[in-house]
Amino acid sequence: MANLNEPESKELLYLDDLRVGQRFISGTHLIDEAQIKAFARQFDPQPFHLDAQAAKETLFEGLVASGWHTAAISMRLVVESLPIIGGIVGAGGELAWPAPTRSGATLHVESEILKLSPSRSHPDRGVVTIRSETVNELGEIVQVLIAKLIVPRRPS
Amino acid sequence: MANLNEPESKELLYLDDLRVGQRFISGTHLIDEAQIKAFARQFDPQPFHLDAQAAKETLFEGLVASGWHTAAISMRLVVESLPIIGGIVGAGGELAWPAPTRSGATLHVESEILKLSPSRSHPDRGVVTIRSETVNELGEIVQVLIAKLIVPRRPS
Repeated sequence: MANLNEPESKELLYLDDLRVGQRFISGTHLIDEAQIKAFARQFDPQPFHLDAQAAKETLFEGLVASGWHTAAISMRLVVESLPIIGGIVGAGGELAWPAPTRSGATLHVESEILKLSPSRSHPDRGVVTIRSETVNELGEIVQVLIAKLIVPRRPS
Repeated sequence: MANLNEPESKELLYLDDLRVGQRFISGTHLIDEAQIKAFARQFDPQPFHLDAQAAKETLFEGLVASGWHTAAISMRLVVESLPIIGGIVGAGGELAWPAPTRSGATLHVESEILKLSPSRSHPDRGVVTIRSETVNELGEIVQVLIAKLIVPRRPS
């Protein structure tokens, strides 16, 4: 997909370089049944993540990825598209999975800066609140993460 | 560790079988450097998750697991210790990582039911709010997840 990031986003950004409303669009990731099952075997061994036939009888009516798999893929896409100096360091956030991720989905992440909060106790850093929507090829939002990131301030 | 779950927790539970304050204690998982790096290569390729030497120069002052890796391991431990009928189906939640997970940590999860909300629109199910703390061998809390689970009601 087109890279809608602004030119300055190619440089590594400090908190001081970010502004509320700034957006970052990731590349894409195609998820398949093998990935879904491999993740599930290791971290979320439930029938609706492991067995397409058994999954038909569940709430999901078919094989779906673990929400934590969607979250992990989303992290990869954010790491590759949000050039923050010092890396993407999350303190936590709010997470929702409004729709499941199914085999064959092509995911990308659209992130928007919601809030910038320089730290009083640590003048060298601050907290950036960012909303990241993970979207499939149909335009359905499969994950919303409102995360708090620890971001360095530009040395004065 | 000792299994503190109550006897009835061996059966598969409906929403109607749960009560506020009920607790579930998971088994344990030992995380090592190989696991941390393997997860990071796939989902969170940043120096503090990939390279013990480079990680010394970062905020973490050493190699740490991706927060999403801690979350995924915690899910595995919850799946194995919370016997809900229909499985563990999360709609989302609030997530915090108060301390990092380091190589050699032995993690377990302590979960407590906070709220039971039968659905008005879907009388066959409801939402269970559960607080799950992931704790290391030193007693440090490395993750707090307050999750909303979709849980079936016992057929009347």
